[in-house]
Amino acid sequence: MTAAGPEPAAAVDADPYAEQRSGTDDEPPGPARHVHVVGTGLIGTSLGLALRRTGRTVTLQDPSPTAAGLAADLGAGRSRTAEDPEPDMVVVAAPPDVTAQVVAEELARWPSAVVSDLASVKSAVLRELTQLCGRGQIEPGDLERYVGSHPMAGRERSGPIAAQADLFAGRSWVICPGPATRTAAVQLVHAVAAAVGAAPIQMTSAEHDAAVAAVSHVPQLAASLVASRLRDLPDAAVALSGQGVRDVTRIAASDPLMWTQVLAGNAAAVVPVLAELAHELGGVADALRALADPTCTIAHSREAIARAIAHGNDGQARIPGKHGAAPARYALVTVFVPDRPGELGRLLQDMGHAGVNLEDLHLEHGVGAMFGLAELSVLLSAEHALREALTERGWRLQE
Amino acid sequence: MTAAGPEPAAAVDADPYAEQRSGTDDEPPGPARHVHVVGTGLIGTSLGLALRRTGRTVTLQDPSPTAAGLAADLGAGRSRTAEDPEPDMVVVAAPPDVTAQVVAEELARWPSAVVSDLASVKSAVLRELTQLCGRGQIEPGDLERYVGSHPMAGRERSGPIAAQADLFAGRSWVICPGPATRTAAVQLVHAVAAAVGAAPIQMTSAEHDAAVAAVSHVPQLAASLVASRLRDLPDAAVALSGQGVRDVTRIAASDPLMWTQVLAGNAAAVVPVLAELAHELGGVADALRALADPTCTIAHSREAIARAIAHGNDGQARIPGKHGAAPARYALVTVFVPDRPGELGRLLQDMGHAGVNLEDLHLEHGVGAMFGLAELSVLLSAEHALREALTERGWRLQE
Repeated sequence: MTAAGPEPAAAVDADPYAEQRSGTDDEPPGPARHVHVVGTGLIGTSLGLALRRTGRTVTLQDPSPTAAGLAADLGAGRSRTAEDPEPDMVVVAAPPDVTAQVVAEELARWPSAVVSDLASVKSAVLRELTQLCGRGQIEPGDLERYVGSHPMAGRERSGPIAAQADLFAGRSWVICPGPATRTAAVQLVHAVAAAVGAAPIQMTSAEHDAAVAAVSHVPQLAASLVASRLRDLPDAAVALSGQGVRDVTRIAASDPLMWTQVLAGNAAAVVPVLAELAHELGGVADALRALADPTCTIAHSREAIARAIAHGNDGQARIPGKHGAAPARYALVTVFVPDRPGELGRLLQDMGHAGVNLEDLHLEHGVGAMFGLAELSVLLSAEHALREALTERGWRLQE
Repeated sequence: MTAAGPEPAAAVDADPYAEQRSGTDDEPPGPARHVHVVGTGLIGTSLGLALRRTGRTVTLQDPSPTAAGLAADLGAGRSRTAEDPEPDMVVVAAPPDVTAQVVAEELARWPSAVVSDLASVKSAVLRELTQLCGRGQIEPGDLERYVGSHPMAGRERSGPIAAQADLFAGRSWVICPGPATRTAAVQLVHAVAAAVGAAPIQMTSAEHDAAVAAVSHVPQLAASLVASRLRDLPDAAVALSGQGVRDVTRIAASDPLMWTQVLAGNAAAVVPVLAELAHELGGVADALRALADPTCTIAHSREAIARAIAHGNDGQARIPGKHGAAPARYALVTVFVPDRPGELGRLLQDMGHAGVNLEDLHLEHGVGAMFGLAELSVLLSAEHALREALTERGWRLQE
């Protein structure tokens, strides 16, 4: 099965799928050989790039001809022609507030294709689709072909130009079948998610929405509200900012329009988490007010503060990869490096001799010792060979 | 002036003060030749290490003989002996809740030494000292020799073993003279801060406390409260955590006891910032409640959310070095590196040939291009030579 459209040339600088791709001329690419992507922003274009690498046919559509043309130029697929048969699968990568409408149009347009969406809210989309069904815009049977999904991938930049073929590699891809969804349709989305390197996880829409409220939407709001406090601060005060506030507020740089769509779309799940946060915040504020006012003594004020910080310890400890390690799609090889000019260069040249490319590198200086630790991030497939090569050349590896 | 005590050996792996130190046998180290450090935790021990490198005599004291002995072993100074004259300056590096008491004891103990403290809250210490003065524990004249200060430096680890001689390099060191403080005492603290590489900044205690409430204390509480929400989440939900929540909650791993002391000590300044945050949070929660309930329509709900995120954009944009750049004590040299195995190694070997050591390295992969960007952090003094050497060897540098 030869994929149509130009090979991605300029946009591709590394190819984690080389093994999968070699031989795609002889072997079929698996289920969903022709995927139609509706919406060629960051996510849709990245999906097109990733699917093209697996040998699948990808056709592209976007309300903006410029965005669709750019995605095609980048190698994410091509426009549909009159000769194209019905796609096996349609993926809607549109903003959350128009997703249900676009999904309904695609279900009505194709009589048998499986239709999935990638919106970051799931219950609202399913609810709106059910309403559109009630109004006769789609048939009840069409909902058997709809599978809501949400790949946990993104970047701070947006648009097709920021797309990356490996955006989904090693990331979770949540799949939320509705009550009417057929098993075969769910399996098709599983297969496509796995084909682009993601880890499919199945849960209900309600479970998904509650999870992202706590691990994504409320953290976003908290970051924005903390950053908001800096607006009217004197310059000398802002100048005292350290790494802590920098980390807490990094995502406060996010796009207001996109986040308004996401938060409005997941309001029902965000409200209870926000209410808990506000309640605990109120308790800490009361305790601090008592401590600030020498005439008012509420017992256990210090305990309330210590407990809030300790509860934060407990919650933070549950986050996987919490030490800011490389994303799961890379293997981490930690090497002891003498703290002398040139030693790190020698290490990386030895890596080069072993034919392994470096995806990321983090340096940690040892305290009270004449060495540093170099954390090398490499593709999972290269880890074993790298460890062997470095050990052979006399490097001391951690673990 | 020869400094007493053993040379820091095992604890020192880089020496950013080599230029300052060379010649300390001939030249006096400047003002405050003998500094007595009370409290040998992370901050006090780091200060001892830094001051010893400038050729100053440092004596150490701590309620824990183990901590004081460890700090001395690390090269931060030595114990006082009966032969030692009165120190020129005493620095109290104690927890915030005992700082005023320890400062009062040191003021009473030494008739003429300047006494400073390094606590992260300033008004509370000054107020308590004034009360101790009212009770006769110190003389009113003693307050002329007291200068509150706060170096904006720290690490996630604590204790003398985590100490670093360059902890203060490139960091702000806030100096808050009280109404009674003599100018000469303020100048002495300025000189000591500058000697260890920090940038002295003078402001009132109230200005300092309001600033750290917004840029440090409230961000800490927000991080803890967001992390706290993850405690009772199902495993599958926590597994969806991405880099956003990881960054927002990184500092939620901080020590509850230390933060209770800090927050209680700065309660008066934290309360108004927290009240603003709670007010804005309430507004967003109301807007989301309206959006979640189709029967209740409050106008402008979406606007309220978008405005909160946009205000966050504005506040975040004010933070200096917000792109997670290397701390100001290092120069950043950005080099275009072809995305081929071995190229980065060749670059770092060229660095080694130029005799420049790498302090940190950050890799950024170019989108749609066959190269990556390597951000090399080097000591400020090495930047010029490195740029010349790399350009000579054919590397393309940014800017």
